Amino acid sequence: MSTNDVEKVVKIIEDIKVGMLTTRSGENLLSRPLTAVQVTDDGDLWFFIATESEIAQEVAKDRNINISFSDKTSWVSVRGTAEIVRDVGKKEELWNPAVEAFARGGAKSPNVALLHVSSESAEYWENPGGPVSLAASWVKHKLTGEQAHPGDSGVVDL
Amino acid sequence: MSTNDVEKVVKIIEDIKVGMLTTRSGENLLSRPLTAVQVTDDGDLWFFIATESEIAQEVAKDRNINISFSDKTSWVSVRGTAEIVRDVGKKEELWNPAVEAFARGGAKSPNVALLHVSSESAEYWENPGGPVSLAASWVKHKLTGEQAHPGDSGVVDL
Repeated sequence: MSTNDVEKVVKIIEDIKVGMLTTRSGENLLSRPLTAVQVTDDGDLWFFIATESEIAQEVAKDRNINISFSDKTSWVSVRGTAEIVRDVGKKEELWNPAVEAFARGGAKSPNVALLHVSSESAEYWENPGGPVSLAASWVKHKLTGEQAHPGDSGVVDL
Repeated sequence: MSTNDVEKVVKIIEDIKVGMLTTRSGENLLSRPLTAVQVTDDGDLWFFIATESEIAQEVAKDRNINISFSDKTSWVSVRGTAEIVRDVGKKEELWNPAVEAFARGGAKSPNVALLHVSSESAEYWENPGGPVSLAASWVKHKLTGEQAHPGDSGVVDL
């Protein structure tokens, strides 16, 4: 995947902002919306979460997560590993007034943590109007070099 | 969750149509867009997939899936079990011309199957403009009665 493709994935994520984070909960897979407060140039993601949340508990048990970003014409799937970050300096760096609405106590509060997703691979699909979708994917060079699979079947605008 | 809430979940899914289906692939969680061709009144979902697709392979190994539907103001997470259905009668019932674009050979083709998701629980979040989200959830009565968790933290419109 070219640098352009990575930039494209980052741009789609920044535009959509709210992703659906999927974690394991025993046998089940659960997902919930989470707003990205930062997307790095290589696709890593930062979110605020509650320290006592379900997300924090599930990530502590299994770091392998997926987060997807969707709108009417673009879909991104990010596979990566998640970690909880409690560093106050980092929390202050990423803090903004909108976070205050759900995370009382400010960046210093132990009840508020960051979720850092180290993105290992991503795929995106775009569908500007027709029934046939485009798919592309990237796998971070730092990893094993395993190729992400090309776009799956079944992507169609009905 | 009231009947109204179930209707609401069904309505959101019908409006968005394209969900991100998450399956297990070994240690990893993968997701990809998939278009619902039918949503039943109680939230079960039907999709067309390729018989040889990654989805079919992964569901054969582990039926527990998640599918999420997102737009700018609504998010739905459905937890359920998936099964591959090859019944030609059912394929013909759900077939439509848009499916033809990616599934050559018509409803009778062995290369085309249905994915039936039996939805066990769902959650939805709505955010009509403000930073605070609403959350609701339902669990099908036919199941154990386990309560779905309330909306997680971290849902905020930044």
